[in-house]
Amino acid sequence: MLSDEHFMRQALRQAERAFESGEVPIGAVVVSDFQIIGKGYNQTEMLQDPTAHAEMIAITAACQHLGSKYLPECSIYVTVEPCVMCAGALRWAQLGRIIYGVAEPKTGFGRLGAGIVHPRTLITTGLMEEECKALMQEFFRKRRG
Amino acid sequence: MLSDEHFMRQALRQAERAFESGEVPIGAVVVSDFQIIGKGYNQTEMLQDPTAHAEMIAITAACQHLGSKYLPECSIYVTVEPCVMCAGALRWAQLGRIIYGVAEPKTGFGRLGAGIVHPRTLITTGLMEEECKALMQEFFRKRRG
Repeated sequence: MLSDEHFMRQALRQAERAFESGEVPIGAVVVSDFQIIGKGYNQTEMLQDPTAHAEMIAITAACQHLGSKYLPECSIYVTVEPCVMCAGALRWAQLGRIIYGVAEPKTGFGRLGAGIVHPRTLITTGLMEEECKALMQEFFRKRRG
Repeated sequence: MLSDEHFMRQALRQAERAFESGEVPIGAVVVSDFQIIGKGYNQTEMLQDPTAHAEMIAITAACQHLGSKYLPECSIYVTVEPCVMCAGALRWAQLGRIIYGVAEPKTGFGRLGAGIVHPRTLITTGLMEEECKALMQEFFRKRRG
């Protein structure tokens, strides 16, 4: 049985693709029945589109795959705490579970309370936190440098 | 000089396109210097994509038009109060002004406080409220009937 760590590692791979493209390194995968059915990485710079977050791209891809705009049987693994926009999208899609790596106190949805996501959505935080955080720190250190 | 009513009427036309497609009738236009540079209507059913709200489509289109992911000089006219997802997107895009027709107490961003949008964003509510509301009411009456 594939573990949470396995899927977060896949989300991290997506984040690394963002990093290599000069984007804030955040990645996400949507999993249904132990299979990845949607993935994405932050592409806001490349597309000059503020809505092109990893989670948004992964949700849209997963919905296309299932032919449904609801994902209650799915989990999303995302390297960084989703922002308010993405949490709103996760609510509309009724994700079964959200697993994120590192908290983002400034823009993360948590500051508005967990009520922002669907009441049936389970939330797991801090999975592979160090790896997810290290990638972000490296990115911002390079950008400042 | 084109008025707020003029642009809200264009947003209503977008909402009517949603209505005709069997979608919850919400429409939006993004305006820069009295010119529409992005428009959209709710397409969540057609695309089976929970992120395909009128505002998201209009923001992406406007950013494509300007080649920028920021829209501080732009106004968005939307027939119904934006949801949390769309308000999050409007914050990222740093919209100069948000003008909406009718409040949506259940899913609108207002229930989370105005702090959800960018601090410099001006908000105008209730423009052509009756027309925007009537279209929504007709849609839900038909759907129930």
